[in-house]
Amino acid sequence: MQPKPMLFSALTTALAPTISLAQTAEAMPPADEIGYIFNTFMFLVTGFLVFWMAAGFSMLEAGLVRSKNVAMQLTKNIALFSIAAIMFHLVGYNLLYPGEGWTISGVLGAFAPAVLEPVGGSAQTDLSYASVGSDFFFQMMFCATTASIVSGALAERIRLWPFLIFTLVLTGLIYPVEASWKWGGGFLDTVFGFQDFAGSTLVHSAGGWAALAGALILGPRLGKYGPGGKVNALPGSNLTLATLGTFILWLGWFGFNGGSQLYMNSAGNVADISRIFANTNAGAAGGALAALGLTQLLYRKIDLTMVLNGALAGLVSITAEPLAPSLGMAAQIGALGGVIVVIAVPLLDRLRIDDVVGAIPVHLVAGIWGTLAVLFSNDEATLVGQVVPILIVGAFVFSVSGAVWLILKATLGLRVDAEAEAKGLDRAELGMEAYPEFTNG
Amino acid sequence: MQPKPMLFSALTTALAPTISLAQTAEAMPPADEIGYIFNTFMFLVTGFLVFWMAAGFSMLEAGLVRSKNVAMQLTKNIALFSIAAIMFHLVGYNLLYPGEGWTISGVLGAFAPAVLEPVGGSAQTDLSYASVGSDFFFQMMFCATTASIVSGALAERIRLWPFLIFTLVLTGLIYPVEASWKWGGGFLDTVFGFQDFAGSTLVHSAGGWAALAGALILGPRLGKYGPGGKVNALPGSNLTLATLGTFILWLGWFGFNGGSQLYMNSAGNVADISRIFANTNAGAAGGALAALGLTQLLYRKIDLTMVLNGALAGLVSITAEPLAPSLGMAAQIGALGGVIVVIAVPLLDRLRIDDVVGAIPVHLVAGIWGTLAVLFSNDEATLVGQVVPILIVGAFVFSVSGAVWLILKATLGLRVDAEAEAKGLDRAELGMEAYPEFTNG
Amino acid sequence: MQPKPMLFSALTTALAPTISLAQTAEAMPPADEIGYIFNTFMFLVTGFLVFWMAAGFSMLEAGLVRSKNVAMQLTKNIALFSIAAIMFHLVGYNLLYPGEGWTISGVLGAFAPAVLEPVGGSAQTDLSYASVGSDFFFQMMFCATTASIVSGALAERIRLWPFLIFTLVLTGLIYPVEASWKWGGGFLDTVFGFQDFAGSTLVHSAGGWAALAGALILGPRLGKYGPGGKVNALPGSNLTLATLGTFILWLGWFGFNGGSQLYMNSAGNVADISRIFANTNAGAAGGALAALGLTQLLYRKIDLTMVLNGALAGLVSITAEPLAPSLGMAAQIGALGGVIVVIAVPLLDRLRIDDVVGAIPVHLVAGIWGTLAVLFSNDEATLVGQVVPILIVGAFVFSVSGAVWLILKATLGLRVDAEAEAKGLDRAELGMEAYPEFTNG
Repeated sequence: MQPKPMLFSALTTALAPTISLAQTAEAMPPADEIGYIFNTFMFLVTGFLVFWMAAGFSMLEAGLVRSKNVAMQLTKNIALFSIAAIMFHLVGYNLLYPGEGWTISGVLGAFAPAVLEPVGGSAQTDLSYASVGSDFFFQMMFCATTASIVSGALAERIRLWPFLIFTLVLTGLIYPVEASWKWGGGFLDTVFGFQDFAGSTLVHSAGGWAALAGALILGPRLGKYGPGGKVNALPGSNLTLATLGTFILWLGWFGFNGGSQLYMNSAGNVADISRIFANTNAGAAGGALAALGLTQLLYRKIDLTMVLNGALAGLVSITAEPLAPSLGMAAQIGALGGVIVVIAVPLLDRLRIDDVVGAIPVHLVAGIWGTLAVLFSNDEATLVGQVVPILIVGAFVFSVSGAVWLILKATLGLRVDAEAEAKGLDRAELGMEAYPEFTNG
Repeated sequence: MQPKPMLFSALTTALAPTISLAQTAEAMPPADEIGYIFNTFMFLVTGFLVFWMAAGFSMLEAGLVRSKNVAMQLTKNIALFSIAAIMFHLVGYNLLYPGEGWTISGVLGAFAPAVLEPVGGSAQTDLSYASVGSDFFFQMMFCATTASIVSGALAERIRLWPFLIFTLVLTGLIYPVEASWKWGGGFLDTVFGFQDFAGSTLVHSAGGWAALAGALILGPRLGKYGPGGKVNALPGSNLTLATLGTFILWLGWFGFNGGSQLYMNSAGNVADISRIFANTNAGAAGGALAALGLTQLLYRKIDLTMVLNGALAGLVSITAEPLAPSLGMAAQIGALGGVIVVIAVPLLDRLRIDDVVGAIPVHLVAGIWGTLAVLFSNDEATLVGQVVPILIVGAFVFSVSGAVWLILKATLGLRVDAEAEAKGLDRAELGMEAYPEFTNG
Repeated sequence: MQPKPMLFSALTTALAPTISLAQTAEAMPPADEIGYIFNTFMFLVTGFLVFWMAAGFSMLEAGLVRSKNVAMQLTKNIALFSIAAIMFHLVGYNLLYPGEGWTISGVLGAFAPAVLEPVGGSAQTDLSYASVGSDFFFQMMFCATTASIVSGALAERIRLWPFLIFTLVLTGLIYPVEASWKWGGGFLDTVFGFQDFAGSTLVHSAGGWAALAGALILGPRLGKYGPGGKVNALPGSNLTLATLGTFILWLGWFGFNGGSQLYMNSAGNVADISRIFANTNAGAAGGALAALGLTQLLYRKIDLTMVLNGALAGLVSITAEPLAPSLGMAAQIGALGGVIVVIAVPLLDRLRIDDVVGAIPVHLVAGIWGTLAVLFSNDEATLVGQVVPILIVGAFVFSVSGAVWLILKATLGLRVDAEAEAKGLDRAELGMEAYPEFTNG
């Protein structure tokens, strides 16, 4: 807000002024603020990486839908992120972190908009943690991620506004409430000792359950399933974008898992964040290679979309416990995630659950696997303490989501009509095309 | 330059050597260097985010032009960034930050190439700020951003070399001079107390004014405007890329606004950067949702390109004061930016000013709005102190740019001939195509 | 793993609790850990930037191959990165950094999987450097980069599995061994005093030599070279993606070169990293502008792919010594890299060496140039100390790679048959298309 002090800097090389002791003294952060600066900056950096995942989901989904639905899918993605940003401010943040202000202790948080510390920081700041602004920024991105998972599964047939209204409920209520049960110090934490480091269950399965409820109520795309169990492939329009999206998500995941360490104010904490980065990478690599090898074995041909989803499933699998495993174990946990995807995708099709991008295998099924895999490396995890919370979160998200979807279906209607679906949502609902100059086959 | 000391690291796990006290002591930065390290690293991180905006502009513009002009648009973008990098080194940096070396005090900076501190740092370094190298790196990106704004507006008809020559003047002279009036401690700062935190006026409006002058002198694309006020839509060729570009810009903007805090050497500064990140995000979300809602209301159909430009206008709007507003106010300031775009785009068309990507509504009009909005949250801002500098910067950039455009028009010629424009600049000027295998409709 | 302490944070604004001295004390990292935190976090940030280069190579290569081979090229890229991640864990890391555990002193490192420090850090940690996890993470990305260079040169004709097996040898053996000769403290360092800051030779030329051996043994694509020295252009299918890839690589390179400083624990170190960022940028800009100007002069038309490769060659050229040159010298070193590419690309074609994306000019030829250019700015470099290691690394990588390619050719076969090549690898080998809805010309 003041003129930038390059006044000084530019001079340093030119005129080499002597530095007064007073200026030098000013340069030192008070010693008790150093840890706070480290923690806060860590949240900002990992937070912008998680923001970047919004672009990753957009590209992945735009690449995996047919070109006639691409503009709509992009619109949904940018809108859902924006809604998440506003809702997390208005209600989500305090629902998730009620502190001592629970509405129902350990179950339902507090209702109030988020308030950041004042400009210049606050004298009341707890220097052992990080700034509220950075914490809000980081946690908001998790909320948006949960909503991103839903959009892909329901693509190519759901109407825009009902989807956005669902997003509003998911980001303003469903996600913050269930996540508060663990991360806000709620009953999953205090009663069950549930271990879910960065959210295989709280974020990924939760998004997956919401997507599953939606997919069941919405029904499959026209022409996806034929008589006699026939499954028609409806290939994505742009695998380059899908691959780009996967790389973006992979990158963002370093922030997603790494930032969940919450602290970078000691050698031990930053070494742990390093472990998490390396393990997250190993999990993704394991998932990609497992899917690559398995599709080669099963189908004699490698399926790129399976490899991409394998990498993502590896990432989801390692998310519940990215710190404790060794590098080798992390790769194996991820690899099993990749195997799960290759098995679960055709299984879902057999059940005639149409999930356009594979979000349910990747986020729900691999999310459950990852949450159970915590048992192999983290002594604090117990079988009951992992399984029961998985079921509770699943039952809660699935039932509340299902209720919201059913209400939306009964009122506004969820689905575009058959003509619009055949024509494509871009021209039917938006009146525009993503690639107007390219002839469609 | 020495062999990497993983010699040691690799041993730590294998041989567990005892750490000598001497080594441990070496590990400690001198206490008075810690703030300098924080500030400098902050500039590097936020600087690479602003660099990333160059890719964002490229993708946005490549997505919004027709496919026959895509390769040219990409060429312009990579070339303008490179020119900005060189010109900011040769003259821009010291023009912008003359220190005590003004050529005309408070109005025209110093003429000399930028010189970084020597290898290993300098004993004369002012430890209360950041390294010259990091400051140069960060500020250079702002210079390039200004030029990026121009390229989109004038797309599909301007010739390459005149555009590059204009870029040279803009990045080497126009931008550094007008920005020095505030950020270099020039007369807009000392006389008017002008408040423009990260450059709604100094960067975004400035780019917008240069683009407006160019668009007026260059004239609209062939076929854009018909008789009787008819406006023909010339839809962009690839909305996925336009969306990707928007997400990239959104991400980069955290660096753009956050880094403009200049300091991260105290709890208060890092908390302020956190506020800025959160507010910047809220501004973008507000802009996107406002544009989404308003296009639905006005046209009964959502226009994805309006939503994208709404998000960008939200970002521009919050740029003049991303620190002081509350989260809610930030979202509203951004939302008004989104509204402005939806109104300004057809208005420009009525004036037959052809701005291919909407750069003038987004950067110029929302930039002015953002600079005025400072009055709502920052007590240091005054009506006169904001309005007069907006006018001065506008008059300066518009008139100098206009003169340069006119000189280029009279000498080299600005515009491709009608045949080349119809054929597309890619084949006519470059002899190549961006998508040679895809049939154009 | 514990509930996130936003319990406290949320309260800070709402309830404003008094901070106990004990909590404040906890907030301070022990003074001797601060440098370690800086170094480690720097590796994580620069490491994720280098990770991002994997996406850059993918997009660059996907954009420069014809659409019928895009899905295969993407598959190769995601698979090679995953293989590098696993192999660097299993053998590469300790081969590269044997510490005192060389198998053959100074020539062949140690065989053992990488082991990170335990959760919570280790009491044996050397606080003067960085966490093993962060070092592993950063260095792993360099290993993957080397493999990425190969995939582009051999595109559109090599079979998937032989390529992946070669990648396994390259990332598990060839790269770690030759890089250990310098960065592990091997004989290139101790005997020759070889200077290669971030790997113009050790990474880029090495990848280039492996690619050259492969290209020679594999032979050119069908139809690339006609009778009488005729060279047929086989233009890339998507120049927007190629440009995006270039910007991604440019961004990632800040991490590649900057992180190679290894330390950020003092004002001098962070100032040096700043120099490196600014110089890296200047090198890229110089390369892009030189290629732009030279193609205009030579061919009267600018070639976008040359401009992109010019930027990349500028980056490769400045990689051997990004710290010592002034900004102006960095731009000139990069510019010469850009000139080299414009000259080397047609030269390779005259030799009928078919390099689909220009990897050999960019990484091998400009890599050699960059390694020699160290002589202009770094006094520690000697002519013999630079030239002989360039030759040794070249001879080693070229001969071992050549042997592996020949074995693969004799056993599995390297090349798809002519029918598959004409049809495209996507449909022939993968049974899928990257852009199934877009008509190919």
